[in-house]
Amino acid sequence: MDVLTAIKGRRSIRAFQRKIVPEEIVEELIDAARWAPSAGNIQPWEFIIVQKQEIKRRLAEAALEQSFIEEAPVVIVVCADEKRSSTGYGTRGRVLYCIQDTAAAIQNILLAACSLGLGACWVGAFKEEEAREILKTPREIRPVAMIPLGYPDESPPPRKRRNLSQIIHHDTF
Amino acid sequence: MDVLTAIKGRRSIRAFQRKIVPEEIVEELIDAARWAPSAGNIQPWEFIIVQKQEIKRRLAEAALEQSFIEEAPVVIVVCADEKRSSTGYGTRGRVLYCIQDTAAAIQNILLAACSLGLGACWVGAFKEEEAREILKTPREIRPVAMIPLGYPDESPPPRKRRNLSQIIHHDTF
Repeated sequence: MDVLTAIKGRRSIRAFQRKIVPEEIVEELIDAARWAPSAGNIQPWEFIIVQKQEIKRRLAEAALEQSFIEEAPVVIVVCADEKRSSTGYGTRGRVLYCIQDTAAAIQNILLAACSLGLGACWVGAFKEEEAREILKTPREIRPVAMIPLGYPDESPPPRKRRNLSQIIHHDTF
Repeated sequence: MDVLTAIKGRRSIRAFQRKIVPEEIVEELIDAARWAPSAGNIQPWEFIIVQKQEIKRRLAEAALEQSFIEEAPVVIVVCADEKRSSTGYGTRGRVLYCIQDTAAAIQNILLAACSLGLGACWVGAFKEEEAREILKTPREIRPVAMIPLGYPDESPPPRKRRNLSQIIHHDTF
C-alpha cells in the first residue's frame, strides 16, 4: 500500500474479527517499529506481545475499562526505556526523546498494520502503575502505549482534521 | 512508494541539493502530518515553514551549530500546543500525549518526504528558549522538532538496529 494512502486512510479500529493474527505478521509490525528514527540511534524501545486472555483483561481494566482491548486477538504494549535515553541525553532524553522515539515506532506499527489489512488503535489512557504491575516491567521501562490489533470488524469514517491554513505558519509563528 | 519500503528505506539526510522544494510539496508533507492520530483527536500541533535564510541560520545556532540546518532549502519546525492537550487531559496530556501526537505527525512527515524523493532529518537537540525567541512562539506553543528537508545529496547506509529477539517480549516483560 502506498505511504500516503496508508497515512490518510488509517483509522483507529476498536472492533475486531475473531480471526487469529499470525505471529510472523505481529513480528513484521515490530520489525517496522524498530526502523523508526531515534535520538543518537539509541532505540529506547521494548515491545510486549500480549495474547493471554487474562493479561489482556487486566490491561483493559488498567486502561479505564476500555473493553475492546481484551477483545483484540493481540495487544502490543510499547515501552520506553528511560535509562537508555537518559544515559545518552540526561533529562531531555528521558522526558522528550524517549517519548518521541517510541511514538515514531508506534506510528510505524499503525501504518504497517493498515498496509497489511489489520486494524489497530493507539491507547494512551491507562494507569501506568497498574500496567507496570501486570506486565512485570523493571523500573526504567515505562509502558507508553497499548496497541490492540486484529482484523477489523468496522470501517469508521475519517475524523475531521484542522485545516492546513490553521496549522501552517511561515518563518515565524 | 510502499509503506514498508518507506519505513525501512528512510534515512536521516543531512546533505541537500540546491534545488528548491515547491511550496505544494511542503504542504503535502504537512497534510500527511495532520492525519496522524492524536489523543481525543485534539490535534495539538502547529507547523512553521522556515525558508528565510537568516531564520534558518539562527535555528542552526540554537541547534548546537548543526550547520546542515541552514543549508536545507526548507526547515519545518513542529510545535506542540501544550494548552490544547492539557485542557483535555491535564498533566498527562501536556507531558505525554502532546509529545506523542506531534511525534507521530513528525514520523508521517519523514515517511511522506521519503516517498516523494525528498530527504529529511529529525532534529531534537536544540535550545528551546532560543528557538522560541527566534520563532516568536506564544508561551503554550513548544517547538519539539526541527525538520530540515530538501532533495538529498547523500545516500547513507542503514544504521544498525537491535535484533527482534532483543526487543520482543511475550505476555509480560
